Amino acid sequence: MARDLETVIDRIDEIKKLYLVPPDGKVSLRKDYDPTHIPPGVRRALLKKRLEQGRELLAEFQDRLYAQDTYSVLIVFQALDAAGKDGTIEHVMSGVNPQGCDVFSFKAPSAQELNHDYLWRCAKVLPERGKIGIFNRSYYEEVLVARVHPAILDGQKLPPEFKDAKIWKRRFEEINNFERYLSHNGIVVLKFFLNVSKAEQKRRFLERIDRPEKNWKFSPADARERTFWKDYMQAYEDCFNHTSTRWAPWYVIPADDKPFMRVAVASIIVRALYDLKLSYPKVSKHRLAELQEIGRALGDE
Amino acid sequence: MARDLETVIDRIDEIKKLYLVPPDGKVSLRKDYDPTHIPPGVRRALLKKRLEQGRELLAEFQDRLYAQDTYSVLIVFQALDAAGKDGTIEHVMSGVNPQGCDVFSFKAPSAQELNHDYLWRCAKVLPERGKIGIFNRSYYEEVLVARVHPAILDGQKLPPEFKDAKIWKRRFEEINNFERYLSHNGIVVLKFFLNVSKAEQKRRFLERIDRPEKNWKFSPADARERTFWKDYMQAYEDCFNHTSTRWAPWYVIPADDKPFMRVAVASIIVRALYDLKLSYPKVSKHRLAELQEIGRALGDE
Repeated sequence: MARDLETVIDRIDEIKKLYLVPPDGKVSLRKDYDPTHIPPGVRRALLKKRLEQGRELLAEFQDRLYAQDTYSVLIVFQALDAAGKDGTIEHVMSGVNPQGCDVFSFKAPSAQELNHDYLWRCAKVLPERGKIGIFNRSYYEEVLVARVHPAILDGQKLPPEFKDAKIWKRRFEEINNFERYLSHNGIVVLKFFLNVSKAEQKRRFLERIDRPEKNWKFSPADARERTFWKDYMQAYEDCFNHTSTRWAPWYVIPADDKPFMRVAVASIIVRALYDLKLSYPKVSKHRLAELQEIGRALGDE
Repeated sequence: MARDLETVIDRIDEIKKLYLVPPDGKVSLRKDYDPTHIPPGVRRALLKKRLEQGRELLAEFQDRLYAQDTYSVLIVFQALDAAGKDGTIEHVMSGVNPQGCDVFSFKAPSAQELNHDYLWRCAKVLPERGKIGIFNRSYYEEVLVARVHPAILDGQKLPPEFKDAKIWKRRFEEINNFERYLSHNGIVVLKFFLNVSKAEQKRRFLERIDRPEKNWKFSPADARERTFWKDYMQAYEDCFNHTSTRWAPWYVIPADDKPFMRVAVASIIVRALYDLKLSYPKVSKHRLAELQEIGRALGDE
């Protein structure tokens, strides 16, 4: 296992570099990230097995995370409709003990949520030490959908002096500060954009409409959002260029091929957990002797 | 009322300047803030009446705050034991509609709270728009009591790499960023240190011990904390010098004279609400006609 693991970790490093948004660089979503990309050498026939391996490693690392009770992991998923957020969360995380992993989906904010600062609804469900928290959409909607549809901002009841043109830059800074604070307090932040192409989204929408077991997932609003494609791409690109940081990097994962996308996401999470060098808490000699004593007593029962 | 109000507001400005910790300055708690200070011209016989006036203004402003539904106010109280936090909150806020004002007391963190980042337990109870939130102690304990008693930090299960000597500076920055974010989102932050002298604390402790209706408020731990007086003064001073900001100023209020302290606190809160220029939401002509129509219909019933 140990040698196997090192090989896996080395290979992940290559994938990680391919899809990372460099913290100090400036990227073009269209030019630098191909939604159909699959690295040469990836054998599609093996992807199912690789995902299984990734899930096993995740389960093991999460168990150590829980035992060590110091770090937690926050995984943010952002994407346009039908990019595969729900499926990725299901397939990547399904091996992990549910007691150690919580998923939160953030839809349009409620009246109560709008009565608070925009990080509030996310901040109060941040993962506890030892746990993995998954945000299916997140506070990033506040610089994405709110930017594409300015009417949303009007509904946020902000003080007029803070509804100026600088609001997006301010929010990027606020989010960076927030995530840096989290990292100082043991919360490892990973952010994934599932990068689906416009053509593939269309194909998936048509499939949803045609198939009875899928059409509940489609609403006319989804098709309407599609007409804002360019605006979304611009908003996402600007967001990545401002909020991919050393302490909370963004990964833009090609999403047209679902099996590859899942392996890529699982791999990057595995790698982040590996980097924490998690070990089970060491039991002192004295405590070990106690435990052995208890063991003997139970044996004599 | 209007002219009266302007006079009151002008006088408050003087008090405010006396006790504000200047955002860009460096203060000495011992030299610059006398716990027994009362400005010349303050007539002690009138303090009770002044407090009553302050309470009435607070109640009126809070009603407008609620109607406008844009801003909220966060008031932080920090102090050593027996400085009068509970009494000040009671006397200053008792005229305000309880529906518009929530008080939270932060004691030693629970096991669940320790499993989270240190702002978590405070962030999740931040005041909604239109409300006044009062923190009786706060996240500032994380740079005060945790600094005076390093064993507390050991219990916080932080990653070892973030338990270094720079932790206090980092926390000051994190708190400043957090409060600036709040101000951008409509939360007005006011912070009060009730500055009691060591001699006056002793007198109040002895009174607590002697009087049966007060001795439930005294615990041997309070006397023990008193032996750390110098360390607390240093921790508070450093805290003020790093976290009194334009967007979230600290006020060091003389606390040896309770009636004056209460008026000073009430005045500064009144002034902050006045500065928001709160007015009741304007009803459009169309809507006004509708309301009148409904009024007539009810009259005809």
